[in-house]
Amino acid sequence: MQKIEMRPIGRVVVDEAAGNYVLEIDPEYREGLLSLETFGRVQVFWWAHGMDDPGMRSILTCELPYARGKRAGVFACRAEYRPNPIALTACGIVKVDHEAGRVMLDYIDAVDGTPLLDVKPYIPVCDRARESTVPEWFREWPEWIEDAGAFFAAEGAPETN
Amino acid sequence: MQKIEMRPIGRVVVDEAAGNYVLEIDPEYREGLLSLETFGRVQVFWWAHGMDDPGMRSILTCELPYARGKRAGVFACRAEYRPNPIALTACGIVKVDHEAGRVMLDYIDAVDGTPLLDVKPYIPVCDRARESTVPEWFREWPEWIEDAGAFFAAEGAPETN
Repeated sequence: MQKIEMRPIGRVVVDEAAGNYVLEIDPEYREGLLSLETFGRVQVFWWAHGMDDPGMRSILTCELPYARGKRAGVFACRAEYRPNPIALTACGIVKVDHEAGRVMLDYIDAVDGTPLLDVKPYIPVCDRARESTVPEWFREWPEWIEDAGAFFAAEGAPETN
Repeated sequence: MQKIEMRPIGRVVVDEAAGNYVLEIDPEYREGLLSLETFGRVQVFWWAHGMDDPGMRSILTCELPYARGKRAGVFACRAEYRPNPIALTACGIVKVDHEAGRVMLDYIDAVDGTPLLDVKPYIPVCDRARESTVPEWFREWPEWIEDAGAFFAAEGAPETN
C-alpha cells in the first residue's frame, strides 16, 4: 500500500531536573495554537524516533513488563515499538505562549528532542470512557490519568511502555 | 526537519446501512492483535486521506461549526484537516477475529477505505481524565464517549470534525 508522509510540527523539550515539559511549535505552524488555552488538556501525538528503524518496526508481540509471563501483540499494548511508532499522551496544559509557540505541560513521557506530529484538544465526548474493560493485570492500576503520577512514582511501579 | 514515513497496517471497512464498522489488518501485521480481545476499547489511529494534499495540510485555523463566529487553530479543534492529518477515535471492541485479522467495532467516524495507522488499547490510567476544562461552547455536550451516539443522532447536533 502507499507510503504516507509526515513532517514534524515541532519538538518536545524536556528538562526532567527542572520539571519542565514543553511543546515547541515551529514558527510556520504557531497560528494553529489559536484558542488552545481554552482547554485544560491536550492529546499529544509524538514520533517515537528511537524506534524508527526496520528492526524495531517489525516487532509484533512482546512480553509485558507489568504482567510476568504474559505476551501481547503491539496493538494490544502501548509499547513504543510498533509498525508505525506514533505515541499518544494526554497531557495537562499549564500555559500557552502563542508568540514563542510554546505549550507548557504538566508532564509528558517523551524524551527531550522527540519530534512532534500533532496536538488535539482533549474533549470528554471524544476521549473519556465511562467504562472500559481491561485485562486482570490492570485491575490494581489507577482509573484516572490524574492518579498516574503518584502510582508510577511509587517504588516498583510498572511502566506502560 | 526530516520526513517521517509510515505505511498503513490495514484499512477501515464501513457499511453504514448494515451498521458494520471493522478494522481489517493486513496479513503481515495480524500477529500484533494478540490479546486485544482482553480490552473493551481501542484507540484507533487513522489517516484522514481525503485531507492529504498540500492545500488542506496548510490550513491552520478554522471557523468552528459548533460555535458560531468562533475561530480556533487546528491544534485546538479536532478538524480532520491539519498539517499531519492523523485522526484518533476511541472505539468499543465488539469482537476480534484473529485469523481474518478483523476487529469489529461499535462505531468509527471514518469513511470506508480509510488507511489504518495504529491501534492501541484504551487504558484508563493513560486515557481517562477525571477533570477536563473545555471552552464554554462544549458545556452542553456529553461528558462521556458512551453518550456521544444519542447526542450526535439528535437533530441539529453539531459535528466534532
